[in-house]
Amino acid sequence: MAVGLQAIEGLPAIPGVELAFGYSGIRKKTADDTLIMRWSEGASVAATFTRNAFCAAPVHVSRAHLGKRPRALVVNAGNANAGTGDRGMRDAQSSCDVLASSVGIDADQVLTFSTGVIFEPLPIDKLSQGIRALAPKLAEQSWDGAAKAIMTTDTLPKGVSAQVEIDGKLITLNGIVKGAGMIRPNMATMLAFMATDAAVDQAALQRLLSHSVDQSFNVITVDSDTSTNDSCVLIATGNAGNSLLDESHAQWSVFANTVEALALSLAQALVRDGEGATKFIEICVEGALSVDEARIVGFEVAHSPLVKTAIFAEDPNLGRLLMAIGKAPIKALDVSKVNLWLGDLAVVLNGEPHPDYAEATASQIMQAEDLLIRIDLGRGESDASVWTCDLSHDYVSINADYRS
Amino acid sequence: MAVGLQAIEGLPAIPGVELAFGYSGIRKKTADDTLIMRWSEGASVAATFTRNAFCAAPVHVSRAHLGKRPRALVVNAGNANAGTGDRGMRDAQSSCDVLASSVGIDADQVLTFSTGVIFEPLPIDKLSQGIRALAPKLAEQSWDGAAKAIMTTDTLPKGVSAQVEIDGKLITLNGIVKGAGMIRPNMATMLAFMATDAAVDQAALQRLLSHSVDQSFNVITVDSDTSTNDSCVLIATGNAGNSLLDESHAQWSVFANTVEALALSLAQALVRDGEGATKFIEICVEGALSVDEARIVGFEVAHSPLVKTAIFAEDPNLGRLLMAIGKAPIKALDVSKVNLWLGDLAVVLNGEPHPDYAEATASQIMQAEDLLIRIDLGRGESDASVWTCDLSHDYVSINADYRS
Repeated sequence: MAVGLQAIEGLPAIPGVELAFGYSGIRKKTADDTLIMRWSEGASVAATFTRNAFCAAPVHVSRAHLGKRPRALVVNAGNANAGTGDRGMRDAQSSCDVLASSVGIDADQVLTFSTGVIFEPLPIDKLSQGIRALAPKLAEQSWDGAAKAIMTTDTLPKGVSAQVEIDGKLITLNGIVKGAGMIRPNMATMLAFMATDAAVDQAALQRLLSHSVDQSFNVITVDSDTSTNDSCVLIATGNAGNSLLDESHAQWSVFANTVEALALSLAQALVRDGEGATKFIEICVEGALSVDEARIVGFEVAHSPLVKTAIFAEDPNLGRLLMAIGKAPIKALDVSKVNLWLGDLAVVLNGEPHPDYAEATASQIMQAEDLLIRIDLGRGESDASVWTCDLSHDYVSINADYRS
Repeated sequence: MAVGLQAIEGLPAIPGVELAFGYSGIRKKTADDTLIMRWSEGASVAATFTRNAFCAAPVHVSRAHLGKRPRALVVNAGNANAGTGDRGMRDAQSSCDVLASSVGIDADQVLTFSTGVIFEPLPIDKLSQGIRALAPKLAEQSWDGAAKAIMTTDTLPKGVSAQVEIDGKLITLNGIVKGAGMIRPNMATMLAFMATDAAVDQAALQRLLSHSVDQSFNVITVDSDTSTNDSCVLIATGNAGNSLLDESHAQWSVFANTVEALALSLAQALVRDGEGATKFIEICVEGALSVDEARIVGFEVAHSPLVKTAIFAEDPNLGRLLMAIGKAPIKALDVSKVNLWLGDLAVVLNGEPHPDYAEATASQIMQAEDLLIRIDLGRGESDASVWTCDLSHDYVSINADYRS
């Protein structure tokens, strides 16, 4: 069902990062639900987390451990360990204890992540047993199986890889991501793990990750619902042997651009595999007073169920786009300055139907899987894009049946 | 499909208000699509309109005519005359001209309303012909047919009536309403028309209507989409013979309470007939710092597609309620003070599963058509309710097929 997206295959190993994955019995379906990862001492680690007030227990624990030079992480799918109170906090802490003792590090050097159903206790005994069984299998290996082990309603494993040369050293960068519903990240995404063998300064790595997340995961939406568990981690092991990267390094921009492109690609993969998605939609808002304003309008369009169902139906009921722009909470919009395009087709000129607009052409454009909606507000110089998918029958089916 | 709602039957006539309705050929299906109304000279008229920046041409025209002591109105269904630019403005004006000349009043004494597809030109010739044919049929009569003539995706005509005695005179109050999708009114609703034979001061009537709308239409949502055409009108003809009502009248509260109850009943009827609705949901938020804050949290829950699909499935996946509360844009929510009930069942105590919570009981409660979700934020003294419906397969079907 994913829109223009293939299952990943052949994600390479990252020197300095060992993986193991398997089935601990947390999800009902017998499919891998546990991933553990360990990386070399001295690696830099950056992360961002959800801003949902009801954030999950593992988010609290990982946030506290991030400053303790983490060396390993554990992820379980099938249970979010969110809304689970004190017991949830103890379970999240236990997952760190078990992994730490299995691999010989301190418990506060472990990051922990959970994804799945909210408000149900984590089966910590199963997870602990799973972690202990996986620890001896840790090895530098392809990330394909890791991407699979963190899936929930995802229809396929999602990941990307890139290579760049810095200081004459070949550097590899991997990223995997999961998430298909409850996707409207706010300062982080569902679960995304990126790693590189580059040597990168810790503070510079966090700045770069925060910026990259803001330009990627924070501008996508499937269904406007911000998860309790969103987390994004970037590990830099330093095994590649380049001189330490920060903003003063001559080749910083090469590295930074690669991380940004990787994050955007992972974020877009979430949308392409959005629950029930049949269309991948970019909403580009130009002529805004600020980037924030452009994003507000973009999200208003991206969250409109009427826009999303019309796109699902390939019905050029484009008045719904005007409705969505018009209800955006921005001040004193002069609709007579608004222009709008669907792909290359001019639809709205100065707030009215463009004289050359032909519905038949719009109808034809809407049959494509990838759609571009471009909106010019005509009131400023700022622009921003947000990405989303359509709203189909399958979204309702998937979320009405999720636990059954 | 409407939830616990019957088609209206036997709405009385309002002395001083004449109606006529019929089919002008604006909608494809042969069903009444035009309503005209004329009322006695000297009547007070109050109205509120959408705040969507792309508001429809008839909204612009009616807003301008409201201060000119209106005497008549025309409504067409099947075409919203929104996003139609200068031509739309001319067409809306023409509809006033035609009705005015047909009934012998000034064009700026006519209010005009349209509802239906956005971004398509209004077939003004058909509408003009329809108005001229209807004018001779104006008569004080039951409002049942009027409620039917303004429907679009509504599954049944919606209206209510009430009677109160003031100054020893029996006063009748009618209201009709249409709307099922694109329902998240902001300062007005889709289309609601109320009339009474009470004598009411013009300024007091407008204050009362604005307050009533704020407590009713402005706290309901079907799909978060604010229409371009929302309008609500209240006409007071004065035929009942009571002494002029304003806030200083001894029985003002009797009248005001009746108007408020009528508006709330009409607003709830919109939700009960929401597109694809199978459940009618009240979300009551208590313990907020302000009414605004309570509404923000209420709407966050009411707009969450994940909450709405879980309720459609009668699946007590109640962690989704926590997710929705947690993503609300309010500052520094202490989740350890949050309590939550489903009907009478305590679900969350201090941010954690209530020790007595049993999913089987929740499951049973969710089988009812009418649901109450009560949330205590534990941070203040203010409360507010919002009303919504679930998100079903039929919502997607209705909106994917709307124009075909």
